[in-house]
Amino acid sequence: MSLFRHVALIGKYHKPGSGEPAAKLRQSLRQALQEIAGFVTQLGCTLTLEAESAANAGITDYPALDIDAIGRQCDVALVVGGDGTMLGASRRLARYGTPLVGINKGRLGFITDIALDNYQQALQPILTGSYEEDVRPLMHASVLRGSECMYEALALNDVVVNRSSTSGMVELRIEVDGVFVSNQRADGVIIASPTGSSAYALSAGGPMLHPRIPGWVMVPIAPHMLSNRPIVLPDALDVVIEVVAGGKVSASFDMHSLASLQRGDRVLVRRSAYNVCFLHPQGWSYFATLRQKLSWNEGGC
Amino acid sequence: MSLFRHVALIGKYHKPGSGEPAAKLRQSLRQALQEIAGFVTQLGCTLTLEAESAANAGITDYPALDIDAIGRQCDVALVVGGDGTMLGASRRLARYGTPLVGINKGRLGFITDIALDNYQQALQPILTGSYEEDVRPLMHASVLRGSECMYEALALNDVVVNRSSTSGMVELRIEVDGVFVSNQRADGVIIASPTGSSAYALSAGGPMLHPRIPGWVMVPIAPHMLSNRPIVLPDALDVVIEVVAGGKVSASFDMHSLASLQRGDRVLVRRSAYNVCFLHPQGWSYFATLRQKLSWNEGGC
Amino acid sequence: MSLFRHVALIGKYHKPGSGEPAAKLRQSLRQALQEIAGFVTQLGCTLTLEAESAANAGITDYPALDIDAIGRQCDVALVVGGDGTMLGASRRLARYGTPLVGINKGRLGFITDIALDNYQQALQPILTGSYEEDVRPLMHASVLRGSECMYEALALNDVVVNRSSTSGMVELRIEVDGVFVSNQRADGVIIASPTGSSAYALSAGGPMLHPRIPGWVMVPIAPHMLSNRPIVLPDALDVVIEVVAGGKVSASFDMHSLASLQRGDRVLVRRSAYNVCFLHPQGWSYFATLRQKLSWNEGGC
Amino acid sequence: MSLFRHVALIGKYHKPGSGEPAAKLRQSLRQALQEIAGFVTQLGCTLTLEAESAANAGITDYPALDIDAIGRQCDVALVVGGDGTMLGASRRLARYGTPLVGINKGRLGFITDIALDNYQQALQPILTGSYEEDVRPLMHASVLRGSECMYEALALNDVVVNRSSTSGMVELRIEVDGVFVSNQRADGVIIASPTGSSAYALSAGGPMLHPRIPGWVMVPIAPHMLSNRPIVLPDALDVVIEVVAGGKVSASFDMHSLASLQRGDRVLVRRSAYNVCFLHPQGWSYFATLRQKLSWNEGGC
Repeated sequence: MSLFRHVALIGKYHKPGSGEPAAKLRQSLRQALQEIAGFVTQLGCTLTLEAESAANAGITDYPALDIDAIGRQCDVALVVGGDGTMLGASRRLARYGTPLVGINKGRLGFITDIALDNYQQALQPILTGSYEEDVRPLMHASVLRGSECMYEALALNDVVVNRSSTSGMVELRIEVDGVFVSNQRADGVIIASPTGSSAYALSAGGPMLHPRIPGWVMVPIAPHMLSNRPIVLPDALDVVIEVVAGGKVSASFDMHSLASLQRGDRVLVRRSAYNVCFLHPQGWSYFATLRQKLSWNEGGC
Repeated sequence: MSLFRHVALIGKYHKPGSGEPAAKLRQSLRQALQEIAGFVTQLGCTLTLEAESAANAGITDYPALDIDAIGRQCDVALVVGGDGTMLGASRRLARYGTPLVGINKGRLGFITDIALDNYQQALQPILTGSYEEDVRPLMHASVLRGSECMYEALALNDVVVNRSSTSGMVELRIEVDGVFVSNQRADGVIIASPTGSSAYALSAGGPMLHPRIPGWVMVPIAPHMLSNRPIVLPDALDVVIEVVAGGKVSASFDMHSLASLQRGDRVLVRRSAYNVCFLHPQGWSYFATLRQKLSWNEGGC
Repeated sequence: MSLFRHVALIGKYHKPGSGEPAAKLRQSLRQALQEIAGFVTQLGCTLTLEAESAANAGITDYPALDIDAIGRQCDVALVVGGDGTMLGASRRLARYGTPLVGINKGRLGFITDIALDNYQQALQPILTGSYEEDVRPLMHASVLRGSECMYEALALNDVVVNRSSTSGMVELRIEVDGVFVSNQRADGVIIASPTGSSAYALSAGGPMLHPRIPGWVMVPIAPHMLSNRPIVLPDALDVVIEVVAGGKVSASFDMHSLASLQRGDRVLVRRSAYNVCFLHPQGWSYFATLRQKLSWNEGGC
Repeated sequence: MSLFRHVALIGKYHKPGSGEPAAKLRQSLRQALQEIAGFVTQLGCTLTLEAESAANAGITDYPALDIDAIGRQCDVALVVGGDGTMLGASRRLARYGTPLVGINKGRLGFITDIALDNYQQALQPILTGSYEEDVRPLMHASVLRGSECMYEALALNDVVVNRSSTSGMVELRIEVDGVFVSNQRADGVIIASPTGSSAYALSAGGPMLHPRIPGWVMVPIAPHMLSNRPIVLPDALDVVIEVVAGGKVSASFDMHSLASLQRGDRVLVRRSAYNVCFLHPQGWSYFATLRQKLSWNEGGC
């Protein structure tokens, strides 16, 4: 008998790159969803497809709900795709507290760690209550112009304020809880959560943050001052990034949604009231994932 | 009237470097301690000198106690010296919970932020209860050989396990709360607290940790694998560093006390039950200290 | 008597930023140019103003030539401004072999090292043949689409291929002298000369190259692979950067001129047939400039 | 018919680590040397074993010479082992100009790129004159105390001056061709050749230098000043590292030979009059080696 009675299944259809046959990708997604749906149903769970996923894959055998209805009605969401798909689903479901399970079609990701080839063995114990719970904080970001809020977004990975390739360095003024930190002249600044610390922030020279660190890391991108180094800040503190100077500047949230910024605009980052909860197979280890993703101890140079 | 009735005064006498006249240094310390002692007494506080400081400076006008007696009897300790002197005093006083105030004879440090030239203006408000409290976690480190504990030490800054200059790379096995993290082939590994994150760990490529981050940063020193990057770990978790291979390996605690390690030895780092509490003048800001120490926003390159 | 008989004087007028009074800037430039022109004339040299500089500053007392005519007719060019102005003048004069002397109105730069306040003392020996010659290689970059050359530019500092802030990572294929080097997934790639190695490339993590190193440094910007590290390449070898994937990608040359790139476009960087020759006061030292610009040995942290 | 008539064969016997059976290692080396010797003889070459290698492996079927006699009499040296064995042989043979071919028993190295499993296919063309020549500069280092030279060594990879683990930071004064560069407070300083740039210097944050760059890279190890960054210097210039302050300081050459330093000692690094010449199979590419050793483009994170 399953602990999670009502299971949602989400599988995002990505527009194929040039040269890749769209029909084949769609067919492969359809097949994966059909199989998983059948397996979950056999386990005695009620299965609902996310409406857009169902439409894209052309599956009509199961009831379909939009993502908000899933959040309200389902006990758990299975997400088929990569880390990007998982990021999107987790931001949308965060307010409902729905836990997520990631099934990866390709290379395993940092947060999607069940291989499609092997989903049955991994899913059964999870759906019957045997799993590792992995709670991740969400960032809430607002773009403020004067006293007006122009834009709001949630981010699971990071908030990035950076220059366009066609304009020079930006100058950003950083404040933490109302206290001045620094003026950063750089390509930009990343505020990353523990989840995002192993993504873009790592490439820009930041450290990894263990998921249980209640903080963000602020990483300057190609800073003018060599002593402008990454700094880990408590997530209980408000971070404000103000555009002091620069040509074309923008803010992006999980490299996904985007806001164009003007001089004087402020991006306020604070901890969201919501968390995301991922479920992993028993024995999952954050460090094992790091080792695998970063190719540690594999005889590299 | 003073909140802190019984004030201890500590001023470490350092052996002078070659060429520096010992008598002059001693005279300068003597004068600083005399002045501060007089000032504190005028404020109505009871003043006690740390015994060794008194002996070194040749001051006999005030009662003297050893550092443990100071911990038991005094309400606050004024420490005259640099960050190194402050580290030593704070490790010794940690178990007694005695708050510390740092008065710096030279360039201001990260934790000793009152200039000797200006101590009166800064001290009076602090001693009468107007200050910023700055609580820092201490690390407790043990060196384990088999089931035996060979050595124990407290560290406010960092625990470092590294190779000697006369031997090759070490190989260290890292475990966190009993879970395998990685084998690091490197010159060594630093585990630094927020306080230590702006010291040696920063030189080795680590991030800064805000004092309120409940974590340590683990920074590899010149790691063989380029993907062996700094990682911030919750201070609630035990970190174990085991010597797997290497010639002459040692562990040091705040770059101060030292233990020679053999193959198979483990260094266990956990959060000490004690904290250190520094008192700063009202308006003190962690970020202002960073800006000053790292020469931010001063027109550098 | 002067070794350099015919001296050109160049002083670029920059559009003032918001809030800065244009008239005041123009007046300050006019005054500087007038003074220097008078001084040079007194030394017995023929002085010619660059035409645009003369027009902007409103100076009509001296003959004026455009920059190409200066290249053909003058023996040396005095450039009043910062490193940016100097970069522009040196690219334009490179084909004529005209040596350049930089007079800086503000903070001294890496290549403009005579302070306006102190120009007389520095200029007189230089114009009479007592100077340090500092020859710098120029990069020649071409943007190739199929077999067509879409754009050509000279660069003294660097050639940068990077993504826009509004698009994801780019994938760039690097070839050196026809040999495949790597596919770089990153924000972009910098190819910097020794002159440019202390500019943007340094911020992105590159090393400094001594001016006499006959090479470029290739520095990835925020690379996805942590082992994608800066590499110093002989400037005798052709470097080709091909856009394999990415949204909005562009190439910039000295952060100045710019080309928009499509998938499949190649940027070819080779050593230009031209060099730039800067003249410095006797006793000038590359290392002293580094120390000053990077605030070495000044008691920083 | 072979271009190289007289071939030397060198295979260093390493003392086994704990637990590894010495007899087995010796047997494996013996077998490899026997096979290669037989193959080379069949190709019509005269084969001579290096005397120590022959003694260690217990091979008496071939004439044996010491390494200097090999340098004087042989046309090429085949070295069986890893990069470390190759470093040793190349330093010893440098003065004789003997080219070297590396045959690797384990993982391929940066300079030993023929797999033992596959040596026949690679060796035959090389010995008959079809190969890529790869010439590498050697460093000559002297330790000077006052006017006396205390020690001299050749290095193919690097010269390292660093502190012991049991003493604090060192202060080193750097001069290049008699011109003051900087005082470095750090764990130490590395001067690496292009060959050594992918070894220890890379771990410490240095760039890679293409083998045809006529320069060394100077890399500070954990420098106190964050703006003390790697710098690439022409190998035509003398580099002097002077010990200004520090406890126990030593200099090492290819991490192999070692000298203990006192305050005031200077380590002088200049380009040796000798080069080393490695022979690689046709089609060998420096960049392919980098890709393989640094795991580029292999789907890593």
